[in-house]
Amino acid sequence: MLGHADRLAHAGLVPVVTGIATRRLGSWLDPDGIDLAAALEATGRGTWLVDASGSRSGTSEDFIDLVSADVLVETTILDRVAGEPATTHVRRALQRGMDVVTTNKGPIACHGQALRALARERGRELRFESTVMDGCPVFSLVERTMPAVRIEGIRGILNSTSNYVTSRMRSGDSLAAALDDARRIGVAEADASNDLDGWDATMKLCCLANVLMEADLAPEAVSREDWREAPPGADGAWRQVALAERHADGTLDASVRWRPLRGDDVLAPFDGLSTAVSLRTDLLGEVTIGIRDPGTDQTAYGIVGDLVAVAQARITRARLREET
Amino acid sequence: MLGHADRLAHAGLVPVVTGIATRRLGSWLDPDGIDLAAALEATGRGTWLVDASGSRSGTSEDFIDLVSADVLVETTILDRVAGEPATTHVRRALQRGMDVVTTNKGPIACHGQALRALARERGRELRFESTVMDGCPVFSLVERTMPAVRIEGIRGILNSTSNYVTSRMRSGDSLAAALDDARRIGVAEADASNDLDGWDATMKLCCLANVLMEADLAPEAVSREDWREAPPGADGAWRQVALAERHADGTLDASVRWRPLRGDDVLAPFDGLSTAVSLRTDLLGEVTIGIRDPGTDQTAYGIVGDLVAVAQARITRARLREET
Repeated sequence: MLGHADRLAHAGLVPVVTGIATRRLGSWLDPDGIDLAAALEATGRGTWLVDASGSRSGTSEDFIDLVSADVLVETTILDRVAGEPATTHVRRALQRGMDVVTTNKGPIACHGQALRALARERGRELRFESTVMDGCPVFSLVERTMPAVRIEGIRGILNSTSNYVTSRMRSGDSLAAALDDARRIGVAEADASNDLDGWDATMKLCCLANVLMEADLAPEAVSREDWREAPPGADGAWRQVALAERHADGTLDASVRWRPLRGDDVLAPFDGLSTAVSLRTDLLGEVTIGIRDPGTDQTAYGIVGDLVAVAQARITRARLREET
Repeated sequence: MLGHADRLAHAGLVPVVTGIATRRLGSWLDPDGIDLAAALEATGRGTWLVDASGSRSGTSEDFIDLVSADVLVETTILDRVAGEPATTHVRRALQRGMDVVTTNKGPIACHGQALRALARERGRELRFESTVMDGCPVFSLVERTMPAVRIEGIRGILNSTSNYVTSRMRSGDSLAAALDDARRIGVAEADASNDLDGWDATMKLCCLANVLMEADLAPEAVSREDWREAPPGADGAWRQVALAERHADGTLDASVRWRPLRGDDVLAPFDGLSTAVSLRTDLLGEVTIGIRDPGTDQTAYGIVGDLVAVAQARITRARLREET
């Protein structure tokens, strides 16, 4: 029985961290590899990271220009209007010839087509499995296991906080009590409107539709119901359901709405923090994938899975370069 | 919008059929590619296939020795005791340097370790997505989208006929009426004991456990309940559930039993002809994948997906050969 590191090495990934940039605690660059235990200890104490040369580096963009790395892992916080600063980070890293893994929905939802085109043009990988469904494979599922399949519709429970809150309300709790608990366990922010008003699900739906259905869907084009618009009697039987449907004439309808789910709906059992997506396809019928109560470990695994894919792509690229 | 053939070509697959061997209507060999419309018309009329040289070829083994092909697609009918003749076909094709796609559970359930070792040794692909879940990706899901993840348990609804029958019984139909309809729509054979007594699910569970959990599980080692052993009151609330669980001490428990499923069980909504599998993993928690009411088109797609994977592997192999 192999340990995690051995299994990753077997899959082609032997990670070395050569730079860390934080929002509040500076950054650390070391082309020979950072001592991660020391970095964790420093950030745990709240002290500034100081790079190997003893100097503090500047902006995150300076960091991307300075770091000696094959891959950028982008995990900044979402700004839903502009998708910044993540989009700038992703673009700059691709332009510098790095592969990119991001957990940030903004770049993919708002600028996915342009960034993916840039990655193709530069011959680099841009991967983002953790942006939706907390690391449960959905982009990779379609890309790597359903060749030549066309996705005609997507229906999903994409926002854990809303799903958790309505699950608790079905058990008789009040919205306020459910939200308090969601905050206590770290899944809801102080202002939960991003979740309850469907913004989070909207951004995720844009990522899914734009990548899996080759759509060009902007967040503003998604018909969105916020919590105040939930129908009377929205006591938890209603769920926040994201839907993208391609019609016969090629047009796309996309919505995030409060809907009742029948007990025999394949999405219904994915309650609490769970997320799930049903894909309506031309060749494979309706395929559903879901993950039960994922947490930060699963989101982190999404990064790891993406890094393995990047490592394998780099191995292939290296072999092809040897050829020529 | 690309058509199917264009999408397959884009994925690397341009299929040419150079041989067809049937059980009752002879076989046809043509290294330049068989006229598929003519072959379909002939078998539709029930007339013998005659190969390009005008001679009828001999046994299926002779066919494998004679055919000029890169890939063998093996779709014979299961013999659950020995996994024959499929196992011989698969072995012979691998030994001849062909890649192999099979829809037959026998070779994988009974001889999976040996055949996969042979494929590795010969540097060839052995793929079998259609053996379980009618083409819905489950082997590819783990292999291609969950690197370094360890599967610790598998729980599934694997047999469509049993699932269809119990769904119909929940709607008030008798076992006999449900079975009649299952035969009429072509999912159950005259003798349904292979399905109702758990043999089909047992073979599929062996395929899953042996490949995804690196187990060495023989069909005889699966604890199996046949229909007569279904608990009193098995009126459709009970479902045929296949289970493989790795314990902390490394031992594996495997069973196919009639069990009640709670309404909030993620497998519960996969009724009728649907199939679904929940994977308990170390890094990704519990991931469930299911397909709604699959038919022969979906099983056929499983072959297509495997053929694309084979084509891509062949492209990589060709590039590596050029290198050396």
